[in-house]
Amino acid sequence: MLRAGIFGMQQDGAPEESEGKKCAWKGHKARMQMRLDKREEYVMSEWKQLWLQYHPVADQGFGAYAGTVVLDGFVNTPVINSLKEEAARGLKGMLGTEPVFADQAEGACIRIRRVDAVASAKAEEELSENQKTESYRILVTPEEIRIEAAGEKGALYGTFALLRAIGTGKALQEAETETVPSNPLRMLNHWDNMTNDIERGYSGDSFFFKDGTVIVDERTKDYARLVSSVGINAVVINNVNVKGDATDLITDRYFDKLAAMSEIFAAYGVSLYLSLNFASPIEIGGLDNCDPLNEEVIAWWKGKIAEVFGRIPNFGGFLVKADSEGRPGPFTYGRTQADGANMLADLVKPYGGTIIWRCFVYNCTQDWRDYKTDRARSGYDNFKAMDGDYHDNVILQIKNGPMDFQIREPIHPLMGGLRKTNQMLEVQIAQEYTGHQIDVCYLMPMFKEVLEYHTYCTNHPEENDRQKEGAGDQVKDIVSGRTFGNQKSGMAGMAAVANTGNDANWTGNDLAAANLYGFGRLSFDTELSSEEIAREWAQLTFDTDKEAIDVIVRILMGSRATYEKYTSPLGIGWMVTPGFHYGCSVDGYEYSRWGTYHRADHLGIGVDRSSHGTGYAQQYYPENAEQYEDPARCPENLLLFFHHIPYTWKLSSGQSLIQYIYDSHFEGYEEAEGMAKAFEGLKGRIPEDSFENISGRFRLQLDNAREWRDQVNSYFYRKSGIPDEKGRPIY
Amino acid sequence: MLRAGIFGMQQDGAPEESEGKKCAWKGHKARMQMRLDKREEYVMSEWKQLWLQYHPVADQGFGAYAGTVVLDGFVNTPVINSLKEEAARGLKGMLGTEPVFADQAEGACIRIRRVDAVASAKAEEELSENQKTESYRILVTPEEIRIEAAGEKGALYGTFALLRAIGTGKALQEAETETVPSNPLRMLNHWDNMTNDIERGYSGDSFFFKDGTVIVDERTKDYARLVSSVGINAVVINNVNVKGDATDLITDRYFDKLAAMSEIFAAYGVSLYLSLNFASPIEIGGLDNCDPLNEEVIAWWKGKIAEVFGRIPNFGGFLVKADSEGRPGPFTYGRTQADGANMLADLVKPYGGTIIWRCFVYNCTQDWRDYKTDRARSGYDNFKAMDGDYHDNVILQIKNGPMDFQIREPIHPLMGGLRKTNQMLEVQIAQEYTGHQIDVCYLMPMFKEVLEYHTYCTNHPEENDRQKEGAGDQVKDIVSGRTFGNQKSGMAGMAAVANTGNDANWTGNDLAAANLYGFGRLSFDTELSSEEIAREWAQLTFDTDKEAIDVIVRILMGSRATYEKYTSPLGIGWMVTPGFHYGCSVDGYEYSRWGTYHRADHLGIGVDRSSHGTGYAQQYYPENAEQYEDPARCPENLLLFFHHIPYTWKLSSGQSLIQYIYDSHFEGYEEAEGMAKAFEGLKGRIPEDSFENISGRFRLQLDNAREWRDQVNSYFYRKSGIPDEKGRPIY
Repeated sequence: MLRAGIFGMQQDGAPEESEGKKCAWKGHKARMQMRLDKREEYVMSEWKQLWLQYHPVADQGFGAYAGTVVLDGFVNTPVINSLKEEAARGLKGMLGTEPVFADQAEGACIRIRRVDAVASAKAEEELSENQKTESYRILVTPEEIRIEAAGEKGALYGTFALLRAIGTGKALQEAETETVPSNPLRMLNHWDNMTNDIERGYSGDSFFFKDGTVIVDERTKDYARLVSSVGINAVVINNVNVKGDATDLITDRYFDKLAAMSEIFAAYGVSLYLSLNFASPIEIGGLDNCDPLNEEVIAWWKGKIAEVFGRIPNFGGFLVKADSEGRPGPFTYGRTQADGANMLADLVKPYGGTIIWRCFVYNCTQDWRDYKTDRARSGYDNFKAMDGDYHDNVILQIKNGPMDFQIREPIHPLMGGLRKTNQMLEVQIAQEYTGHQIDVCYLMPMFKEVLEYHTYCTNHPEENDRQKEGAGDQVKDIVSGRTFGNQKSGMAGMAAVANTGNDANWTGNDLAAANLYGFGRLSFDTELSSEEIAREWAQLTFDTDKEAIDVIVRILMGSRATYEKYTSPLGIGWMVTPGFHYGCSVDGYEYSRWGTYHRADHLGIGVDRSSHGTGYAQQYYPENAEQYEDPARCPENLLLFFHHIPYTWKLSSGQSLIQYIYDSHFEGYEEAEGMAKAFEGLKGRIPEDSFENISGRFRLQLDNAREWRDQVNSYFYRKSGIPDEKGRPIY
Repeated sequence: MLRAGIFGMQQDGAPEESEGKKCAWKGHKARMQMRLDKREEYVMSEWKQLWLQYHPVADQGFGAYAGTVVLDGFVNTPVINSLKEEAARGLKGMLGTEPVFADQAEGACIRIRRVDAVASAKAEEELSENQKTESYRILVTPEEIRIEAAGEKGALYGTFALLRAIGTGKALQEAETETVPSNPLRMLNHWDNMTNDIERGYSGDSFFFKDGTVIVDERTKDYARLVSSVGINAVVINNVNVKGDATDLITDRYFDKLAAMSEIFAAYGVSLYLSLNFASPIEIGGLDNCDPLNEEVIAWWKGKIAEVFGRIPNFGGFLVKADSEGRPGPFTYGRTQADGANMLADLVKPYGGTIIWRCFVYNCTQDWRDYKTDRARSGYDNFKAMDGDYHDNVILQIKNGPMDFQIREPIHPLMGGLRKTNQMLEVQIAQEYTGHQIDVCYLMPMFKEVLEYHTYCTNHPEENDRQKEGAGDQVKDIVSGRTFGNQKSGMAGMAAVANTGNDANWTGNDLAAANLYGFGRLSFDTELSSEEIAREWAQLTFDTDKEAIDVIVRILMGSRATYEKYTSPLGIGWMVTPGFHYGCSVDGYEYSRWGTYHRADHLGIGVDRSSHGTGYAQQYYPENAEQYEDPARCPENLLLFFHHIPYTWKLSSGQSLIQYIYDSHFEGYEEAEGMAKAFEGLKGRIPEDSFENISGRFRLQLDNAREWRDQVNSYFYRKSGIPDEKGRPIY
């Protein structure tokens, strides 16, 4: 373990900046020195503490309460012990106070109090058990700051919320809140392999696995603290593509380690899940098939599941990727996806377990010559017909769009399309197609768009569906379970493919931690704005002046739009290097088997997914379908996803399509340059290692953006023969 | 070791064919059975014996001599023992005779006789020591078949030649020959890594290395027999990209094994060479630099080279790839390529060693936006200026074309461009860009074109050059050393990047063995025709009827033209999947750093390498330069290499360029289908395992050819907007 001051940056003197900035810097430095004088240097581990580093803050009045923490109605359990440890750590780090934990207080105190319910009785009735015990209320009186919760997880979340309020410099009264988690399940899906690497991992190797073993160490706990602090309550630690040793995770070889890990997680309110190999009965059971309706197979699973839940405390259940991209599944035996999911679900039910079944099933050996088959259609085509056939403890996990985590896709039509089946949203914070954690791309603006999308599902009730009266039709209403009554059972929520690895900074680019933080916060409270989240994260992460925080927030907030501008235009997606998925290759996936085409010719570009084309647009409810169907009404940022459009087509701005391609790519690069330049102004104002990390990434991003700009522009100029109106260099 | 009859195919009964073919087959089968009755079943090893399997043949009169082999003037040495073993094996296999080796014969015999010289005195004067001792003469009299040679290697080659004459069914008198090797050096360059894999290897793993060790086993000897039988006299066993363990090949760790290998090779007239890591002084010498003019570095190399030549008998020297594709080299220290090569050459000279220095030096971090830099120019630009500066035992090894083993390139302008420097031709039989040993592509027609190309170098003598009076100006004259007087020193010849691996059939596709056979034969005798070689190989390899041999020869002979048709058009090259280099990706290398561009836009395609463009055409002597300079006179098969041509350009056939692209791609696919179909007719007429191997490869080739056809056609249709005149499907 390395010991290093986080304020090492102070050694480097004032940054070379304008006079105004220098003054701001000097003031900040002076304040910081004062605080440092008051107490010991903060101690860091080998890996960063990110937003839990609890750097010193100017006390807004919280210090007066922080001497005593009263536990009122809670006894010492692992979760309460975590709460106490975190409170002590946070209050000491930020305010320099070492609180006493007591049953009662002499003066002002922080009181953690058990109550019957946080939300109103009517609201409570709709909530899952998870949500009821995870809600909290914070009240501030002259005598106490009171955190009320009906369960210990709510108390822990309330404590994190109070620490966050202190860390973000809130005034006392601003700490008051009544918070019910928006979603019952808030998950991370790690794609970690037991061969150390992480599929689509851009921040080092796995910290869950090493050389075929499961790792349980201090980092396991810091991981649990980090994800718990933002409200994550379930994690899948292994890749959905389950191969090799990972198939054995459900055998005696790994149970002890997994049990130890699960206990650490549980102390932070997090349930451990595993990804499952559907072919386990063959690969480790010695059977000759894995047909989900075969009695022998069912018997094998029954024994295996009893073993898993028996050996791993607090075990949540399984995530399954079946019949997809070469993975085995029920289709092999002429069975349905429901047959596969229900078989497992019935077996885990006695243990309160859940089966999360991915909807990412498509033909990945498509012929590019075939203009009728459409990968975008496949999720709906494969899952809509069996809506209602899935058992109560199955959740279908649906990606935000119908393709695969592109920078711009329409919302998946299964969202709201499924009306009688538990469903859950899957997003990706690993930036597989959005910059590889090299290019900055803060994804909360995208996720907010997804959550706030109107599906119009409530306008079209079906017989026997479970639509709630007055329910919303936005994605956030659906995936939280509020629209179709799945909330109460807890079989609803949001999952993100995680972006962590064993890099010291966890996420490759220091700025990419905003996506980890953000996903947790947003899944806990879908009403938060992207900017609020970005600002919280920046404030908790960087001990710097307000102006610097503003710069970071501006960079984050603009980053997704910038990335979209310099990459593939208007929703068409792909155009990336095959396999690796980073960097430009306009035709990289054009003549492939992956169903990922832009169909550009000398006259135009785009895929006709209207009813004249693949018919995909008709998978939406009419209100949306009609828009998508018509190029004149289609949202322009999705124009090329839904239509093949001539380069000369006039956009609403008056630009031709080709000119838009040129302009947006030049703009995108300029914006990236602008971000990089703005960031340079932070030299000396944030820790040197962060500064070096992020500015190094910006250098790579600029190279990347330049390649995208020039390759995309040259490609379309060479194809269309139409020159840039502004005569800028195109090759 | 497996034991299996090579005539297993007879178990399968007559093939389902036309009546005529059935009859031919029946006759053949009957003949074969007769022969089999006479002797034991032939024994195979785990790996095939290829053209040395010595299958039974109809005796054309050789049997009468085969009872006794007289060694006349030769004593038992390792090479003579190899000769005896091979003669015994071959005569037994083909004729069923077990010869007696004696000092004299009672009746007719085969006499191996040492003579002073094979060639005329005048010719001898020009020849290298290698060639003098490797030449042989075969005479047939009623009393004896006499193989005359001035050295034991000539005697061995003569013996292989006699066995070949028997195996190919020649009449007695047709076996007569007087053969002097065309080239002093006839090398294979293996790109085998010590991590088992082979760079650009398409036939399994290395049989020289396994898990960081050197393998010396029975296969080592069979390898030596195979390459010796076709005249190869030097081999480099490790990849030119020397990394990891391979850097240590020149340390004590490996000397014993290398010595053992070298002795096996020497018994077949083959010298062992190694590829060298130019940074060895740093990596294994503990020095901080590898500057070729640094005294410490030179001293280190001096000791190291003494050690290598001291420990490895018959060691030939080193092959060096420096300053290329990330390899270290003299440029790092501001030294010239000559500085680097000469330093090593001076040190190996006392041991009779040779330094072979590759001319594959180019900027591999080019900006695709840059239309002036031209990778094609780099060899000439880097090496021409120092012509004459290289010491006598340095050979510059020059690829056949200026790019990298594409299916069609112009001849490298250093060929004949260098007039005062030893030079050697490098070709590739590993089909990196010509079908990966999946698609059949018999390369002798290409190599013949290369060898017969007129450089016109003799029209332009330079001061102090060593041009021989009356010398030819063709590539074969230059690389053999005849034109510029390098022959006598032996510092001239041909090398091929090898296509072998540890697959049972050595070369992935059984048909690809024709390239291994062919390269050896052609480098030994550049006057052989491609078809003669193909027929020899087919006859020695397949024990089948003449009609079947004709089919195989026709397939081989047409295969390169077919491959060219369905891949990249008219000399432009590339258009392959990056990294892997198999399969079509038209833009795969278009926006890359590798200097490999086609520059296609909506009006045309090709790279202007005339004096209006990169000026590359001017690197040739005027007779060629003038042709290349002018699109109207430029050989059409190189048109797009030298010029950017509009799609509407009329070719000499009257076709437009775009129509030629369409037509040739449709034709190429049809021809591939035709080859596959013709081959299917051989079912039951060649061994089942060969049939299955080759027809499996044809299935893959057809998939591949179809992708090439459709991707190339669609790409250019989408770009040009010009439809196919014949209305065939383009996507």
